[in-house]
Amino acid sequence: MAHLLSTSFSVKISSSNRPCGQPLNQARTALPSSFTIKTSKSSFKRLVSKGDRTRKSCVVLATAAPVSKEVTANPRSGSDESRSDSSKPQRVMVIGGDGYCGWATALHLSNKGYEVAIVDSLVRRLFDHQLGLDSLTPISSIHNRLRCWKAITGKTIELYIGDICDFEFLSETFNSFEPDAVVHFGEQRSAPYSMIDRSRAVFTQKNNVIGTLNVLFAIKEFREECHLVKLGTMGEYGTPNIDIEEGYITITHNGRTDTLPYPKQASSFYHLSKVHDSNNIAFTCKAWGIRATDLNQGVVYGVKTDETSMHEQLCNRLDYDGVFGTALNRFCVQAAVGHPLTVYGKGGQTRGYLDIRDTVQCVELAIANPAKPGEFRVFNQFTEQFSVNELAALVTKAGKKLGLDVQTISVPNPRVEAEEHYYNAKHTKLIELGLKPHLLSDSLLDSLLNFAIEFKDRVDTKQIMPSVSWKKIGVKPQTVPAN
Amino acid sequence: MAHLLSTSFSVKISSSNRPCGQPLNQARTALPSSFTIKTSKSSFKRLVSKGDRTRKSCVVLATAAPVSKEVTANPRSGSDESRSDSSKPQRVMVIGGDGYCGWATALHLSNKGYEVAIVDSLVRRLFDHQLGLDSLTPISSIHNRLRCWKAITGKTIELYIGDICDFEFLSETFNSFEPDAVVHFGEQRSAPYSMIDRSRAVFTQKNNVIGTLNVLFAIKEFREECHLVKLGTMGEYGTPNIDIEEGYITITHNGRTDTLPYPKQASSFYHLSKVHDSNNIAFTCKAWGIRATDLNQGVVYGVKTDETSMHEQLCNRLDYDGVFGTALNRFCVQAAVGHPLTVYGKGGQTRGYLDIRDTVQCVELAIANPAKPGEFRVFNQFTEQFSVNELAALVTKAGKKLGLDVQTISVPNPRVEAEEHYYNAKHTKLIELGLKPHLLSDSLLDSLLNFAIEFKDRVDTKQIMPSVSWKKIGVKPQTVPAN
Repeated sequence: MAHLLSTSFSVKISSSNRPCGQPLNQARTALPSSFTIKTSKSSFKRLVSKGDRTRKSCVVLATAAPVSKEVTANPRSGSDESRSDSSKPQRVMVIGGDGYCGWATALHLSNKGYEVAIVDSLVRRLFDHQLGLDSLTPISSIHNRLRCWKAITGKTIELYIGDICDFEFLSETFNSFEPDAVVHFGEQRSAPYSMIDRSRAVFTQKNNVIGTLNVLFAIKEFREECHLVKLGTMGEYGTPNIDIEEGYITITHNGRTDTLPYPKQASSFYHLSKVHDSNNIAFTCKAWGIRATDLNQGVVYGVKTDETSMHEQLCNRLDYDGVFGTALNRFCVQAAVGHPLTVYGKGGQTRGYLDIRDTVQCVELAIANPAKPGEFRVFNQFTEQFSVNELAALVTKAGKKLGLDVQTISVPNPRVEAEEHYYNAKHTKLIELGLKPHLLSDSLLDSLLNFAIEFKDRVDTKQIMPSVSWKKIGVKPQTVPAN
Repeated sequence: MAHLLSTSFSVKISSSNRPCGQPLNQARTALPSSFTIKTSKSSFKRLVSKGDRTRKSCVVLATAAPVSKEVTANPRSGSDESRSDSSKPQRVMVIGGDGYCGWATALHLSNKGYEVAIVDSLVRRLFDHQLGLDSLTPISSIHNRLRCWKAITGKTIELYIGDICDFEFLSETFNSFEPDAVVHFGEQRSAPYSMIDRSRAVFTQKNNVIGTLNVLFAIKEFREECHLVKLGTMGEYGTPNIDIEEGYITITHNGRTDTLPYPKQASSFYHLSKVHDSNNIAFTCKAWGIRATDLNQGVVYGVKTDETSMHEQLCNRLDYDGVFGTALNRFCVQAAVGHPLTVYGKGGQTRGYLDIRDTVQCVELAIANPAKPGEFRVFNQFTEQFSVNELAALVTKAGKKLGLDVQTISVPNPRVEAEEHYYNAKHTKLIELGLKPHLLSDSLLDSLLNFAIEFKDRVDTKQIMPSVSWKKIGVKPQTVPAN
């Protein structure tokens, strides 16, 4: 297999003219002058001995790693040798680490002392290009983001660029990085995107289901002790007329009792893909002893975390469009540009919400307190429930304080969903693990509105209205941006 | 688009030297001397007017149709014009119509006066080649099967050969055949097959989920009144410690009540794929008004139906191997060749079973009594419950009457499943529609054993033992037959 080595090569790239601007945290600044990107066409894992991380870091399709790695203190673990036996994993692979939640999580974990690798195909950026959309905030390339993070904190985040549906690629990332935990954000995550046309519906289910299957197989084959932290969604449950429990419900029926998976009623091809994932993961926990935590996350709002605020090049994306934008973020941007808040239908749709600062906190709690082998653990990851009308009222009030004239309109609901319904979802398990929620406050709304105002010149108002209809989805590929 | 016509061509094929042997039903014999296979690379549906079935029959990838079609009486419907409004559909597309259940169903429906088309990629025959397996019974090519059926009964079954995961192909079949009902058997249907290796697991879920998604999109786009009759499996439910209902369960929880999808606990990547399908279909019924019946079928036994018994060229397949063989059929073949009956583990695994003659009856009942628009109807399709040990005892007793020395051995269970458990599954809805069950009887067991004895020289005993382990499945493709 020695010939494989010859397919590897390394290229030195000078850091850019403005690699990281003026770091906010000057004390930590340590700007490196060059980086190495190493690639190979195939694995040479058999050539490198266990524990030789310097050589292993170059077996992936493309990894941007500093020439010399710095040793960072990790408060959570023992020695390298005992790592796989530790209940406190330290090497965390963040799949989808270039996205909204993934980026914030990768930085947070790196900052907390975990050794982090980001695995991402960057296809989310391609979706923006194809649909003619853009983040409210200007976001740097993943390469510049990681250079900046290194410059500011001295911490390295490894980067593996590729598609986890390609099992050869995923195998290489596993054998190179040897994760103790995998946080899996790497899915097409927009319900409207999955309802654009047949090809996007099929893409969403194929991409999400097969990607997750591959991760499960990779864990079984290469890292059987690795803890899978999978991002699910509260949308898997739908809106039943009974309380929503965390993953399981105890049912007494005809005089007998069992605790069974909570019935799911997902309402888009995207939400369904997450239900499929949950069922697949549950099976592998039982059959193979996989340890997994399913984080059924609510709607995330906000943009800043401690880490993304450190420098403008670390800034997170913020979506406000009809495809990727979600309720509260979208309303704040609408208020900032003087567009009426767009309530779909009656506005009684109630969901769980959480601040992105709690997303990163929840993921860390799950990693620090891993599931047992064979356990399929489900946490409902949100902190408060709101109806769409309640959110609109909160944004209206907060906008007025800033002198904005905020109007609200009801637009025909593009989705098929109940617009007035019972909703009471449990969310105690993450609190029990130590979550300290950032509840929605006036100051957060002020901050988010001011943030939106700061970037309002970047808003394309044609992208605000919903353009994807649940009922009108057809088989013909939508090849032209909706506006 | 006229150039498309030039890509079509037709080839005359003489009927083979023994096209149909000596028909059992001599009164109906009408052996045609030639057939036409017509192909085109693309649709020319825009060139043919609605109702012009003679021309439409040639727009598919490959259709074997008689030169002249005979008009057959159909007792269930009105005129061609009123067909789409009728609650008794007459044009039935059987996807997977070359398989064990699909073939018997296609013949049964044709015999009952429905106009039938078979859609099949024939990949099931490829699996046999690749794994070194074969049906106990010699089965004719689908082309010869249909020629024989035509010869014996005068009835035409149209044939569309292609993959429903190819939406262009599926669109053509829909626009050519214009089904009033689609019976969907077209999935990879073996749990062990799905557990051979990663690539087969991924294939099973991708093939089954995407194929069904495509069928749903085709119905929405081209035939919105078309009734989908989808083959699910009782295995979707797993073995809960409470009674299994038909698709839904009413739950009272914390003082509130709702009727929700019955919780699923599937135990192979195959069974999971059917759960995914059920969830996808339920969503499209709600969002698009699709009318669907999910037939959660038990384990099917037997081989003969009224129609497959008409001629040896109509003979159905019978699988006895460790991958595609199912419990009762496998036991009968084992008894016939003097191989011990292979009980997996303790043998207390209890499931629902049904005679293949009831499979075809149930499907017809579902078609004749379609779901309403927007309704997702679930029927548990089996007639009796047995444990594996009970089946082994029944086959032992029946074998002894035929002078066979039948032994039973317990082999290590290759699956991950409960071997002793509560099991009580409801199955009343098909009875209410008029199902007259063929319960498992001494005469059926005699018949099946004698059938197995008749073909015992074809048995490859190396294929009998289970070769696929739920726990040992790996990522490396299994490229060599297991024996």
